[in-house]
Amino acid sequence: MNEKQATTILVSDPEDPRLDDFRDLNHSDSRPDLPGGKGLVVAEGPLVVGRLLESRFPVRAIVGFGNRLESFLAETPVPEDVPVYEVTRETLRQVAGFDMHRGLLAAADRAGELSVEEVTEGARTLVVLEGVGDHENIGALFRSAAGLGVDGVLFGSGCADPLYRRSVRVSMGHVLRVPFARLEGGYTTWQRGLEALHDEGFRTVSLTPDENAAHVADAVLGPDGKPVERLALLVGAEGPGLTEHAMRATHVRARIPMAPGTDSLNVATSAAVALYERQRSLRAE
Amino acid sequence: MNEKQATTILVSDPEDPRLDDFRDLNHSDSRPDLPGGKGLVVAEGPLVVGRLLESRFPVRAIVGFGNRLESFLAETPVPEDVPVYEVTRETLRQVAGFDMHRGLLAAADRAGELSVEEVTEGARTLVVLEGVGDHENIGALFRSAAGLGVDGVLFGSGCADPLYRRSVRVSMGHVLRVPFARLEGGYTTWQRGLEALHDEGFRTVSLTPDENAAHVADAVLGPDGKPVERLALLVGAEGPGLTEHAMRATHVRARIPMAPGTDSLNVATSAAVALYERQRSLRAE
Repeated sequence: MNEKQATTILVSDPEDPRLDDFRDLNHSDSRPDLPGGKGLVVAEGPLVVGRLLESRFPVRAIVGFGNRLESFLAETPVPEDVPVYEVTRETLRQVAGFDMHRGLLAAADRAGELSVEEVTEGARTLVVLEGVGDHENIGALFRSAAGLGVDGVLFGSGCADPLYRRSVRVSMGHVLRVPFARLEGGYTTWQRGLEALHDEGFRTVSLTPDENAAHVADAVLGPDGKPVERLALLVGAEGPGLTEHAMRATHVRARIPMAPGTDSLNVATSAAVALYERQRSLRAE
Repeated sequence: MNEKQATTILVSDPEDPRLDDFRDLNHSDSRPDLPGGKGLVVAEGPLVVGRLLESRFPVRAIVGFGNRLESFLAETPVPEDVPVYEVTRETLRQVAGFDMHRGLLAAADRAGELSVEEVTEGARTLVVLEGVGDHENIGALFRSAAGLGVDGVLFGSGCADPLYRRSVRVSMGHVLRVPFARLEGGYTTWQRGLEALHDEGFRTVSLTPDENAAHVADAVLGPDGKPVERLALLVGAEGPGLTEHAMRATHVRARIPMAPGTDSLNVATSAAVALYERQRSLRAE
């Protein structure tokens, strides 16, 4: 590990262009100068920076306080071609635009998007999102999806960018690990992608607060009452939920029973409960 | 309803002392001038303001933009002794210290705390928290607890204030509805309160990522394999989780199975899954 630490470069001038990837982080998620105009993938803290290094996203640079870098590099192999910049807290504050108390950051290029086929191949459990526009919910959903054994996430229309800095942080880096892809088409056409899932043997389940829907414990089972081989869970936005159009394109509508007079669960929480039920159904296998 | 609207009072001076309850809201949660020094209970938006009015907390005042007040008062009965102040967006911005785009707020006094007995009496399902210091997690937990049929929440040591503005908002007002109380004692003594729960027939279940713990689906059942009459779920802080001392004081340790190489679920998400499992166990009844 010592040879890796040797690559650490001290940078003291906040204007140094080598720190540009970490500049003005509150506004860095839209960078029209970069391919796609969406900015870099930024990871914060040793856990998430470590996951970024293990991911398919090409890391451009790491920056951190001296003590944070030292402990990180002592435990994490960093490729030699990744520059590591040591800065003071004050320098990083001036570059990032606010106090980054965690003191360790990495930036990566966006990798080419995966195809739907790459995500679904071999998958047993998928999540399909429609209209989930909140970065925090997207991040929370990926964190739970990773923990509950989801093999991939497919995006329908109207979803927020999972690689936005806040999503990366809330997901604890799992947006970098759980494969995802976009279903093609607009507001009412992306659901055609669900037909391809049906052809591949997926049972598609729409999560809804509708009291007439099946109990989620029943909905994750096949018509024979046994756990299905492949399952795709559809989840809609907080508030409006899935569109009727999307739900009609699925095999079954599922509800989590709610106490009278309460609201539906948060979208990421609902998804976690349904995914738990999916894993529970496979438990006896 | 029209007579209620008649009580609306137009206030245009941001310095008007009648708006003091809504002043500098980012720092209003600590008000040493008020009983307990903890500030008022502040509700934001029509849903949560409506829940505040139905709660045990005595509402002091409502403030809002003209159009927001009009639609709110058309649907919600407001006691005549509650003053309703109409303000412009700019006035409210100056009073609150930031742009309150929802345009409807209410402030209430903290009501006297409930006793543990008041919370547990007649309850079938309780949540007990230890060291949950994050206001957002507390709020999320109350929201899920309400939806999943929890009868009350008990606080052990080291927990954040559930009546903090952020907790109220994230809970969607359910911290105002789900009864809660504090177990007495310090860091290692509050668990004695669990003995009283055992005496009252509660099965106590500690939620933990420990792989040696029982599957949560089994842990919510009694030794006879049937759902228990009364259940109290213990949940600890994100990261450290429950203390060993707390877990030892409970009947059983329960885990939600996690995929390899992932983190435990968020504390509020874990609790929601376990509470779902509790309700699922009662489903056949």
